Amino acid sequence: MKIGIIGLGRMGANITRRLMRDKHECVVFDKSTDAVKGLEKDGATGAADLASMVKALDAPRAIWVMLPSGKITEDTIEALAGAMSVGDIIIDGGNSFYKDDIRRAASLKEKGLHYVDVGTSGGIWGIDRGYCMMIGGETEIVDHLDPIFKTLAPGIGTIDKTPDRKGHDPRAEQGYIHAGPVGAGHFVKMVHNGIEYGLMQAYAEGFDILRNKASTDLPEAQRFDLNLADISEVWRRGSVISSWLLDLTASALAKDEKLAAYTGYVEDSGEGRWTIEAAIEEAVPAEVLTASLFARFRSRQEHTFGEKMLSAMRQGFGGHLEQGHTPVAKGD
Amino acid sequence: MKIGIIGLGRMGANITRRLMRDKHECVVFDKSTDAVKGLEKDGATGAADLASMVKALDAPRAIWVMLPSGKITEDTIEALAGAMSVGDIIIDGGNSFYKDDIRRAASLKEKGLHYVDVGTSGGIWGIDRGYCMMIGGETEIVDHLDPIFKTLAPGIGTIDKTPDRKGHDPRAEQGYIHAGPVGAGHFVKMVHNGIEYGLMQAYAEGFDILRNKASTDLPEAQRFDLNLADISEVWRRGSVISSWLLDLTASALAKDEKLAAYTGYVEDSGEGRWTIEAAIEEAVPAEVLTASLFARFRSRQEHTFGEKMLSAMRQGFGGHLEQGHTPVAKGD
Amino acid sequence: MKIGIIGLGRMGANITRRLMRDKHECVVFDKSTDAVKGLEKDGATGAADLASMVKALDAPRAIWVMLPSGKITEDTIEALAGAMSVGDIIIDGGNSFYKDDIRRAASLKEKGLHYVDVGTSGGIWGIDRGYCMMIGGETEIVDHLDPIFKTLAPGIGTIDKTPDRKGHDPRAEQGYIHAGPVGAGHFVKMVHNGIEYGLMQAYAEGFDILRNKASTDLPEAQRFDLNLADISEVWRRGSVISSWLLDLTASALAKDEKLAAYTGYVEDSGEGRWTIEAAIEEAVPAEVLTASLFARFRSRQEHTFGEKMLSAMRQGFGGHLEQGHTPVAKGD
Amino acid sequence: MKIGIIGLGRMGANITRRLMRDKHECVVFDKSTDAVKGLEKDGATGAADLASMVKALDAPRAIWVMLPSGKITEDTIEALAGAMSVGDIIIDGGNSFYKDDIRRAASLKEKGLHYVDVGTSGGIWGIDRGYCMMIGGETEIVDHLDPIFKTLAPGIGTIDKTPDRKGHDPRAEQGYIHAGPVGAGHFVKMVHNGIEYGLMQAYAEGFDILRNKASTDLPEAQRFDLNLADISEVWRRGSVISSWLLDLTASALAKDEKLAAYTGYVEDSGEGRWTIEAAIEEAVPAEVLTASLFARFRSRQEHTFGEKMLSAMRQGFGGHLEQGHTPVAKGD
Repeated sequence: MKIGIIGLGRMGANITRRLMRDKHECVVFDKSTDAVKGLEKDGATGAADLASMVKALDAPRAIWVMLPSGKITEDTIEALAGAMSVGDIIIDGGNSFYKDDIRRAASLKEKGLHYVDVGTSGGIWGIDRGYCMMIGGETEIVDHLDPIFKTLAPGIGTIDKTPDRKGHDPRAEQGYIHAGPVGAGHFVKMVHNGIEYGLMQAYAEGFDILRNKASTDLPEAQRFDLNLADISEVWRRGSVISSWLLDLTASALAKDEKLAAYTGYVEDSGEGRWTIEAAIEEAVPAEVLTASLFARFRSRQEHTFGEKMLSAMRQGFGGHLEQGHTPVAKGD
Repeated sequence: MKIGIIGLGRMGANITRRLMRDKHECVVFDKSTDAVKGLEKDGATGAADLASMVKALDAPRAIWVMLPSGKITEDTIEALAGAMSVGDIIIDGGNSFYKDDIRRAASLKEKGLHYVDVGTSGGIWGIDRGYCMMIGGETEIVDHLDPIFKTLAPGIGTIDKTPDRKGHDPRAEQGYIHAGPVGAGHFVKMVHNGIEYGLMQAYAEGFDILRNKASTDLPEAQRFDLNLADISEVWRRGSVISSWLLDLTASALAKDEKLAAYTGYVEDSGEGRWTIEAAIEEAVPAEVLTASLFARFRSRQEHTFGEKMLSAMRQGFGGHLEQGHTPVAKGD
Repeated sequence: MKIGIIGLGRMGANITRRLMRDKHECVVFDKSTDAVKGLEKDGATGAADLASMVKALDAPRAIWVMLPSGKITEDTIEALAGAMSVGDIIIDGGNSFYKDDIRRAASLKEKGLHYVDVGTSGGIWGIDRGYCMMIGGETEIVDHLDPIFKTLAPGIGTIDKTPDRKGHDPRAEQGYIHAGPVGAGHFVKMVHNGIEYGLMQAYAEGFDILRNKASTDLPEAQRFDLNLADISEVWRRGSVISSWLLDLTASALAKDEKLAAYTGYVEDSGEGRWTIEAAIEEAVPAEVLTASLFARFRSRQEHTFGEKMLSAMRQGFGGHLEQGHTPVAKGD
Repeated sequence: MKIGIIGLGRMGANITRRLMRDKHECVVFDKSTDAVKGLEKDGATGAADLASMVKALDAPRAIWVMLPSGKITEDTIEALAGAMSVGDIIIDGGNSFYKDDIRRAASLKEKGLHYVDVGTSGGIWGIDRGYCMMIGGETEIVDHLDPIFKTLAPGIGTIDKTPDRKGHDPRAEQGYIHAGPVGAGHFVKMVHNGIEYGLMQAYAEGFDILRNKASTDLPEAQRFDLNLADISEVWRRGSVISSWLLDLTASALAKDEKLAAYTGYVEDSGEGRWTIEAAIEEAVPAEVLTASLFARFRSRQEHTFGEKMLSAMRQGFGGHLEQGHTPVAKGD
């Protein structure tokens, strides 16, 4: 089918290419004309602005917005709302906060427009591996867009079927689901990312313990100088903790067991934070997901004010003068 | 090669069968004569006791002990030490504490015996899927036993090769590694299980947040009634958090999305606890692995004494009389 | 000075009494006429409704709202805004969310009204011990209300002066501060409560460890049957961890070392939750405060869905059938 | 009574002085002859070595060992055991691990010697404020030493009596308890320190949140530039979270609100670690105490290996190139 795509960064460009490979017609726009030209070479129709994109599509139009969450997505959707017509569809494929989805959909509904939120996982590998999609929206609209989702999804591929899975929605096995009404797609994707943080931190802590088993702080007889590249590789085969994240870890460690190229400064994004806020709203204890987020916060500071305060108290009651150390680079 | 196997529970019996499928000769013993008879039918040589097992093997003898960690493993190894001869090998394939390995090996060395510790992952699936093995011991002894490990390991199978993995030990790709000296095998397996706890808890918390998004404690407009079976299925394909544990989760949820057969009472084993102790010895922050262990501790109690104390303090300063509630079954 | 007080629950009634003891004139209102009559006996002027309260006060009027945070506070302030005149002051002495303060103040400002937020700590002891107050608002308005705050505050009392405290605001030593603009008072009070949760949980966990040192799960030679009442008492004198919360704990344990009257079901309130949300907004790792909140969430459930999921995975990979146990009451 | 004291560091010297103020006769030894001379000036009898100390005391001798826990305490007790006679008493007033106490007492018992473990809290303030003591040992030996404990303890002082405390051991109100058999004293002191870590971290996190409320990462309208010195001071009066640790915090912040003299590098000691190991042995969830310990571990590193691994994974799946930032000094 014919679809507009706004935002031709890594994700948007690859989604466009995957769609065109399967014969969908793509009209594309990006503030970077180079990005537009790049896609035109691959067969897309470039649009000079939002208005011309809308003109180039047939009613009911479908436009996929693939921009960073926040102001730019908000502004783009607002502009589209002004340019599109009753029955048209705006798809937010980025990482918007699900409460923003609900608010926007209500506002668009007043103008007769439909809104669909798609949580999209797959990263840079998605163009070939396919995108895992979690979709929120009205049933008939989601069904109408099915050809798009079908193309973008990974399909069953070589992954084993889940035993005892009968009478369930067959789309899940293809790699996409209609999660529920507007907001449900991004909500599920948000929790997906929250889990991702937790899984990553579990591996990180485990490898940290392996690495520091060679520490000279330990009695010599209890030290092991372990080969992390081999350990990550062996766990990929037959162990309980094999996963795609472990595959990536094994790949990074195979290149450099010390990971010297990385500073240890780790970013976080809205989804990890919103997951904890959702847990708090629901009164669900989520210790692991929260600790994973906090580890990233901590990674970005040389020290916290709180840590200075601990030292101040220790001096207060015990006269301890904390070592004047600057922090040590452990685990290098 | 010829090998003795002591302990014919689920793991020991399946290991024996996998070895025999590949033409190794197995002499087996278990305190249950039925278990011995079962394996005899499949081609093993049954032994009536440890002494006759030792007699039935050729020097240098190799005996694989596959028993629960703790007293029974300790006693069995001690008994074997009395019955075996200089140059013989005892393999502990169970889940012993690595410091016990180091102590035992030192004691066996005085008698000229060798000790090898093998951390074995694979559970009930290992007989067909193969066992992921982490091995500690002297290099020549581990090399001598290589035919055994090669048979038990999964092999490369259908799992993709890790990119950029060159110049590394090729055994890791086959699913087994010589991790280091005695103790290193169980140490690596211990951390493996620590990570396993963390991964499991990350999924558990995430699904808890999904489940409680239908809670009537939330404003109605913000509730979603999500289909957990479909969500776990879709994440298996193309998402960043796909893993074998997720495959198992999808299978359980496909059978019953409410998991009503489970009480929520969760056991833990030595390895999860020792991982935290190792982290503490190494001064490695391991918040996620620890929280995962503590969640299991908490799952086995109706309430803690600490929680009563919180209520007592609240009444003390605020006159709050905590609800007389018995705990509620949330998330059913 | 003359002041109106709305909300005559435990906190509002005691605040009124402490004000009247110091010769302030109080006009009071509560939806319960009994509550109003009770205060009238003590010397207050009862008001039949908000309008008559406003009439009974002299411009610039000051009205202290002491109601549960949320809708009732919101509605009351809105109603007052309709009845009061330019230059009048509304004081929210409850536990409102500080972002609500900022929003309300902006709205009231358009009508020429002033808004002051007062975080009030002291609980049921405040009438005699005084109230610790954290105040947000315009400087001249806060200064105008100083006689009220001075009366309500504890004063220096018998508490030692802080050494080296020179050139600081003398009000802090009296037990009240002007924390900053509107919202700052409730923000500081919010963090106060977040810390309170953390302190409480630290004691709770410590006493849990003491209590379970008698557990029959431990080797007999390592068990101690400790007297928690005596331990809490001794720590009150000369130890590093003496505190008012410990005083309350000692009092509760002196009455019943088993705390049998408490179920272990522990409520939480908005402030503990908002503190974590503030930490997330600021990217401050706040592991302890969060864990304290989550411990309360967990205390109110018999089990979590996540725990069932752990059992399902364990069965999936290991064939473990978790014990059918209902949770045990530990530490009774 | 007459008593020997070994180890004249800050704690040992002050204990000696407090004992002499109350007319006890002290025979003292330290490897530093200056330390011994310093106490001789104050009235103590110096001993040149352990043997002469033993000679200078009367049977049954009591010697208080006040040395850093670990090898030096172990060696000293062993040496004393060789020099002392049946019925004599060794008191370990340091911070030994309680399992070491149990082992030592069993060994000393074979020689007819008694062992008493005293957990001592009070730090540099103890000489005037008194020491809070938690004592483990045989009842008649602890009773025999009562004059020593009575002198060292704070006594009731100006601290209010706990309401409803009837029929309990009166020693607790004086600031010392006989906690149980050998080991119980240090066990209770260990948990005391575990709680101490938790309390300190709760304050540290709270003040971190207050401090970062001025962060330019927040929307300007939501920033507050809070005065931490005044906040810590006001919480000392009438608030629920007043404590001795808060008093010390207020004192440090009064001197320098930025705590610029402290690096944020925070040490931990054995007791914090052993508390977590005890929690694990007892299967008690102790999230807050553990997080407090881990925060200190983290404070001593520039970054962890685990954090680098997070970045490596992020690059693996998303192509994210983490900022090359060196960590920032937040909260200065």
